[in-house]
Amino acid sequence: MNNFQFYSPTEFVFGKDTENQAGLYVKKHGGTNVLIHYGGGSAVKSGLLDRIKKSLEKENISYTELGGVKPNPRDTLVYEGIKLCREKNIDFILAVGGGSVIDSSKAIAMGVPYEGDFWDFYCGKKPEKALPVATVLTIAAAGSEGSGDSVITKENGNLKRGAGSDLIRPRFSIMNPQLTCTLPPYQTACGATDIMAHVFERYFTNTTEVEITDRLCEAVLLTMIKETPRVIANPENYDARANIMWAGTVAHTNIVGVGREQDWNSHGIEHELSALYDCAHGAGLAVIMPAWMEFVYKHNVLRFAQAAVRVWGCQMNFENPENTAREGIKCFRRFLHEIGMPLTFAELGAREEDIPALVEKFGIGDGKTGGFVKLSAKDIENIYKIAVSPELI
Amino acid sequence: MNNFQFYSPTEFVFGKDTENQAGLYVKKHGGTNVLIHYGGGSAVKSGLLDRIKKSLEKENISYTELGGVKPNPRDTLVYEGIKLCREKNIDFILAVGGGSVIDSSKAIAMGVPYEGDFWDFYCGKKPEKALPVATVLTIAAAGSEGSGDSVITKENGNLKRGAGSDLIRPRFSIMNPQLTCTLPPYQTACGATDIMAHVFERYFTNTTEVEITDRLCEAVLLTMIKETPRVIANPENYDARANIMWAGTVAHTNIVGVGREQDWNSHGIEHELSALYDCAHGAGLAVIMPAWMEFVYKHNVLRFAQAAVRVWGCQMNFENPENTAREGIKCFRRFLHEIGMPLTFAELGAREEDIPALVEKFGIGDGKTGGFVKLSAKDIENIYKIAVSPELI
Repeated sequence: MNNFQFYSPTEFVFGKDTENQAGLYVKKHGGTNVLIHYGGGSAVKSGLLDRIKKSLEKENISYTELGGVKPNPRDTLVYEGIKLCREKNIDFILAVGGGSVIDSSKAIAMGVPYEGDFWDFYCGKKPEKALPVATVLTIAAAGSEGSGDSVITKENGNLKRGAGSDLIRPRFSIMNPQLTCTLPPYQTACGATDIMAHVFERYFTNTTEVEITDRLCEAVLLTMIKETPRVIANPENYDARANIMWAGTVAHTNIVGVGREQDWNSHGIEHELSALYDCAHGAGLAVIMPAWMEFVYKHNVLRFAQAAVRVWGCQMNFENPENTAREGIKCFRRFLHEIGMPLTFAELGAREEDIPALVEKFGIGDGKTGGFVKLSAKDIENIYKIAVSPELI
Repeated sequence: MNNFQFYSPTEFVFGKDTENQAGLYVKKHGGTNVLIHYGGGSAVKSGLLDRIKKSLEKENISYTELGGVKPNPRDTLVYEGIKLCREKNIDFILAVGGGSVIDSSKAIAMGVPYEGDFWDFYCGKKPEKALPVATVLTIAAAGSEGSGDSVITKENGNLKRGAGSDLIRPRFSIMNPQLTCTLPPYQTACGATDIMAHVFERYFTNTTEVEITDRLCEAVLLTMIKETPRVIANPENYDARANIMWAGTVAHTNIVGVGREQDWNSHGIEHELSALYDCAHGAGLAVIMPAWMEFVYKHNVLRFAQAAVRVWGCQMNFENPENTAREGIKCFRRFLHEIGMPLTFAELGAREEDIPALVEKFGIGDGKTGGFVKLSAKDIENIYKIAVSPELI
């Protein structure tokens, strides 16, 4: 196990009707003049925004609204948000939505006290200050409600890049699984895929002697395997929604990933797809992550066999562990197919002829990237090609 | 799943040589004049205290020392600590030790700004203020390094009682598994038993639809089952020590227990043993918890069968699930025996004739207590009796 630091100071408020406590928690965490940042009309139509505003008013907290966050959130709205916050002297940002809204809020939070271009933080610069951010989560997926990460897409050039800092970890996150019950099956499945991918990115590691985090990773995956088909079959199943929602947070605070090298190539490879095609991140991961597995599993057959046995319930083939490893990848694809996810470039709406451009955008040149297996541009090209026509399907 | 709030703001600094960062972290968390609270001579003899003092001096942080904390920490030293902190204008308490030292530090932290008797907080009163507490952990066991709990023994009357508040959650906890490598096998096994007990207290619940926390509980237990025999066989196995140390924290921040009713009768029943005989808490739990399981398992045979199958790797007996449930309890006892724990009153040095006094001290009168199964005084008497001569052994 490697040395590590783990810090997750977010206060999680979980359960039915908890959004009515938004005002109380903003007050507790020192907010007096709030930017409510949200996405499309569903937060308005469902009455959620009204309930939150009412709860802020009850605590005499003033607020300004900024909607319009799109999936794969854009830099353009971030600039608008930064300007608005400065004009209105905002001292607290409340994200009402899923990962896109939260990530956009985090970008604004870093940008407001910064004199330069906020995009600097998405090119490796570390922020020194940020406005406090909190969330009312409406989609179980990104884990952004409990992480110090944010991913933003630069509209001009379709660049999708990430930033990270403890300063943008949410002060509190209100998580009411009821709010996710209206989410259509496709988006629900995209979220579930994202959650599972967050775990797998940590699971496949070269660090040995990490039983506790291996087992915690498996705990989240086993939960997702049980609960996801239940919400696809019955979107209003509160308990299954609740299990998935908390699993999504546990998957990404990093408590399941501390003390070990992590991979994260699948996320990087996928980001180019959602940047170019504006597809859902989870759908892109459903296509890319098993293709990545197919490409790298020989690097550590027994680790893939472990996943097959412990996560997918495969029987270990002691005469030929590679068969078990391959069976695990097939199980993952079967599961993704059953919950309605695409498995190939074609199903995603991606085009084989764009592969050179995707690799070019990935932009690693002659270098290599990743934790579990270091990949070259050629390797990444091959993974995209596997995603065109997978073998282990 | 039940509604819940989860808040674990402790900054964990984990790994080799991390105690040398104590000064840096005290400074980061605002301490300027520190009480170093510790136990016996091992922290002195090993040079640990010197390294910590050096690291404080490097940051120009002044300090006062108070050693002498015993296992089952006493109120008498807490009073002394409170007096000392007031005299010296201490603004930060650094606990260097295991659960007893940390719990004593938490008691002092609540007592210093309080005009009344600190014992009030161990009789149900909630504190409004507390000095900040942090830890350098030397024993993997109590989980106090990441919890808002503290247990203190009143010397006059052998009363052992608990207090809880987010105010006493450590600001940071430095966790170097190397520091636990000198711990003798018996104390190591006591710690492991305590960790597993913290999980089982949460695992046996009447709350349904809690797959995520069930699986997280099982993750910690599976890790303990793998790693504990390795450190008993080779106390200097760093990686096994590291897995156990992080498992101990995960077991008790409550991340594995949120959203579900918990039991905690075994801890209460054990506390009377360690209060009366001054035995190790973990050893007492090894005697009491399986006895409690033997007494209550019929309340939910399938939950005990789930533990047997998922945690102990038993084959499910679909014709007679009760056999599986009983087999799981036997596995637990076998495991405890293998790591050198006592299983009976006699092995612990407890006496059957003290049972009426133990029940009397437990002090529930005509009431009932506990989460999974509500127990009367008569039930508790019966559990002590099972611990005299267990059946499932």
